[in-house]
Amino acid sequence: MLLENLREEVLDANLELVRRGLVLYTFGNVSGISRKDGLIAIKPSGVPYESMKADDIVIADLDGRVVEGKLRPSSDLPTHVELYKRFPKAGGVAHTHSEFATAWAQARRPIPCFGTTHADYFHGPVPVTPDMTPAEIGSEYEKNTGLVICRLFDKLNTEEIQAVLVAGHAPFCWGKSASDASHNAVILESVARMAYYTVGIANDAAPISRELHDKHYLRKHGQNAYYGQVQSK
Amino acid sequence: MLLENLREEVLDANLELVRRGLVLYTFGNVSGISRKDGLIAIKPSGVPYESMKADDIVIADLDGRVVEGKLRPSSDLPTHVELYKRFPKAGGVAHTHSEFATAWAQARRPIPCFGTTHADYFHGPVPVTPDMTPAEIGSEYEKNTGLVICRLFDKLNTEEIQAVLVAGHAPFCWGKSASDASHNAVILESVARMAYYTVGIANDAAPISRELHDKHYLRKHGQNAYYGQVQSK
Amino acid sequence: MLLENLREEVLDANLELVRRGLVLYTFGNVSGISRKDGLIAIKPSGVPYESMKADDIVIADLDGRVVEGKLRPSSDLPTHVELYKRFPKAGGVAHTHSEFATAWAQARRPIPCFGTTHADYFHGPVPVTPDMTPAEIGSEYEKNTGLVICRLFDKLNTEEIQAVLVAGHAPFCWGKSASDASHNAVILESVARMAYYTVGIANDAAPISRELHDKHYLRKHGQNAYYGQVQSK
Amino acid sequence: MLLENLREEVLDANLELVRRGLVLYTFGNVSGISRKDGLIAIKPSGVPYESMKADDIVIADLDGRVVEGKLRPSSDLPTHVELYKRFPKAGGVAHTHSEFATAWAQARRPIPCFGTTHADYFHGPVPVTPDMTPAEIGSEYEKNTGLVICRLFDKLNTEEIQAVLVAGHAPFCWGKSASDASHNAVILESVARMAYYTVGIANDAAPISRELHDKHYLRKHGQNAYYGQVQSK
Repeated sequence: MLLENLREEVLDANLELVRRGLVLYTFGNVSGISRKDGLIAIKPSGVPYESMKADDIVIADLDGRVVEGKLRPSSDLPTHVELYKRFPKAGGVAHTHSEFATAWAQARRPIPCFGTTHADYFHGPVPVTPDMTPAEIGSEYEKNTGLVICRLFDKLNTEEIQAVLVAGHAPFCWGKSASDASHNAVILESVARMAYYTVGIANDAAPISRELHDKHYLRKHGQNAYYGQVQSK
Repeated sequence: MLLENLREEVLDANLELVRRGLVLYTFGNVSGISRKDGLIAIKPSGVPYESMKADDIVIADLDGRVVEGKLRPSSDLPTHVELYKRFPKAGGVAHTHSEFATAWAQARRPIPCFGTTHADYFHGPVPVTPDMTPAEIGSEYEKNTGLVICRLFDKLNTEEIQAVLVAGHAPFCWGKSASDASHNAVILESVARMAYYTVGIANDAAPISRELHDKHYLRKHGQNAYYGQVQSK
Repeated sequence: MLLENLREEVLDANLELVRRGLVLYTFGNVSGISRKDGLIAIKPSGVPYESMKADDIVIADLDGRVVEGKLRPSSDLPTHVELYKRFPKAGGVAHTHSEFATAWAQARRPIPCFGTTHADYFHGPVPVTPDMTPAEIGSEYEKNTGLVICRLFDKLNTEEIQAVLVAGHAPFCWGKSASDASHNAVILESVARMAYYTVGIANDAAPISRELHDKHYLRKHGQNAYYGQVQSK
Repeated sequence: MLLENLREEVLDANLELVRRGLVLYTFGNVSGISRKDGLIAIKPSGVPYESMKADDIVIADLDGRVVEGKLRPSSDLPTHVELYKRFPKAGGVAHTHSEFATAWAQARRPIPCFGTTHADYFHGPVPVTPDMTPAEIGSEYEKNTGLVICRLFDKLNTEEIQAVLVAGHAPFCWGKSASDASHNAVILESVARMAYYTVGIANDAAPISRELHDKHYLRKHGQNAYYGQVQSK
């Protein structure tokens, strides 16, 4: 069986969404990539999480073709493929319909950085894509979803903002690995929830200052980070 | 005992409402129908879910008369009966007071299709009935609740929109089977919750485009569906 | 030990608040009364629910004096006493700081009857007391809390509306027994939550009609009730 | 090993945040102080709660230098140090990003005392700091966070209001001990949640009267307290 370790990590990253309450029934999908092999491991489509096993995970190539697996891959695979092609540091992609992040996507509003929880993880607002056109929806819809995200990130740093809201749809997150992408999806949901409550208290709430945003982001990321235990960098 | 398999399915479909947090105490009721026998299996009225067994499920005919069962059927049975008579493809009906769907019913507002989660399941807004008249309330209230729903669906497709909000009351859902009806009730609650959050973020939020709505609905339903694993159609 | 059965019921009615998520730490208190003995059984003050036992329940008379019990009674005992004295059919009283009912009390707004869930249990809006005066707060505060509630109910039916919001404080509920009072507290919280969501969707939402309100209340209460299984009345 | 009992208490006070749902992943940190030894015991930085043990707790002095411990202390240690230096009765400090308290901090609004739950614990509104300046953020940020809090409390009673919202960040709480600080963090979150719902119902909701506020605060605190069981004072 190809890529056993990656399958196990991808399985666990999918189950993390269940453990954190981000998915209902078979909603959501997480993938991971082996850059060396040019192969993606992704959740199968419409299979219950309760019974999912590592060998249900589907292996596909960067053209979205299934290389190994008896089940169909997630129908969102073409979106994952585009992100992997365009974001060279992405090792994992996570897609959920988690309720607060999805509400911001449905409201077509970027999530402003209202506080340091957001700043600890995302170095800027979480952006929202423009609406997809009828032509983009009509043909190769899932691939075009990926392309719309990629175009939005032409001017954004894909390592410092690892989340996006697809307008009228839901979030996609990514990260160094499948588990990192899942982790970002969980954090995004909490950030989205607190941003929702914030505008409920003060609908003119302002984002935090650039200095505070940078301070928190950089105390956790990059060469001068000092949060957590000492790690090899 | 009549219809043992149907009783078991109806019992499990009722318990699914408990597992998903949609019911409080003895609230809610799910039924299923055997079209061949012209018989409905429905939850008994006011019995705790914890101790409910398959032989507590009541069997009634399409006139709402109990055919087998030592307990009284749900007092909403006459509503279920009308839906079965008018919606020939309905194999199950689920009624809950789940909190967000009920809030939309209490606000007497249809749930707009704000995103693809909604579009994946319901091919249009989830409609709300007009208020019932004093005459409709005064006599045969539960039957009239069914008739009010049916009149509303004269111009709607009962297979593509399998949920309704009864004004000032709560939702009714249906589906191919009892478990499908329950599943739709769970999805409706999540859709209602996200719609609530959406209007909290942007009270002028607009529905998604017809193209996106169709795309998501049709990738999961009908002969060109490609979501999930290959199934016999 | 006096009134063992009542102690057990009162213990269980207090624990029901825990099971339903209505209390935090030692918040809340439920009591029951033996009208025959003129004695009240009530939760002790500030004792953790996890370790509470039937013999921790305190027995007091209708002057609020402890008759049996090694612990202090809930500091709200004088409020319970006034309700028992004024509401002759009340067999139990439950007080919580459950979050949505408390929010309505803090907003000093009665809970309108927005739907049939409310109508199934409360035959009218859930009223809110006027603010207590400095004199009422300054001396015999807990007793005066009860008197303020009683005055409010001079023109209300204490059997048909078994809940009140004390302004700037929280709800008190009552019922035929301690467990019935607890049950009403749980229902009130759900009704308060749905009413909150309702005004969030439509801040001009209107109550349901008098006919629908009566219909639902009376199909569950009184001599023509037909909800649930046949019971001795 | 230094201060074994304190380590155990601090560990348990940290785990209380997990049990009450106040923390996500490694968020949050609680410390306790031995005034006699001039030593602080604090959660290590970025360590999962699931595997945390008493000997992972880090011991530091009042200059913030680690005295014992193989792990790095929480990066917020300098904030805790300032609070201990300035608030002589504080025996413990708890910092969380609990969602509702954080939302008020992000909205930069003090939490008004809308009800008696608040009044039972905090003798005044829960204040919010001014925004930190670029200079305060640029150097010794965590220490300056503490100093900003201390300046705000120049005119407030640090024993009667044991919580603060740091603007654009999150709450800090304190108390007689580590477990008391944790307890206050749990209460604050509930108070913040109910205040959020209150303004959702009536955005012009007014605080309770000074008399009611004092009454509830003083029936639980100080020499005339009568809530709970008799304790040595």
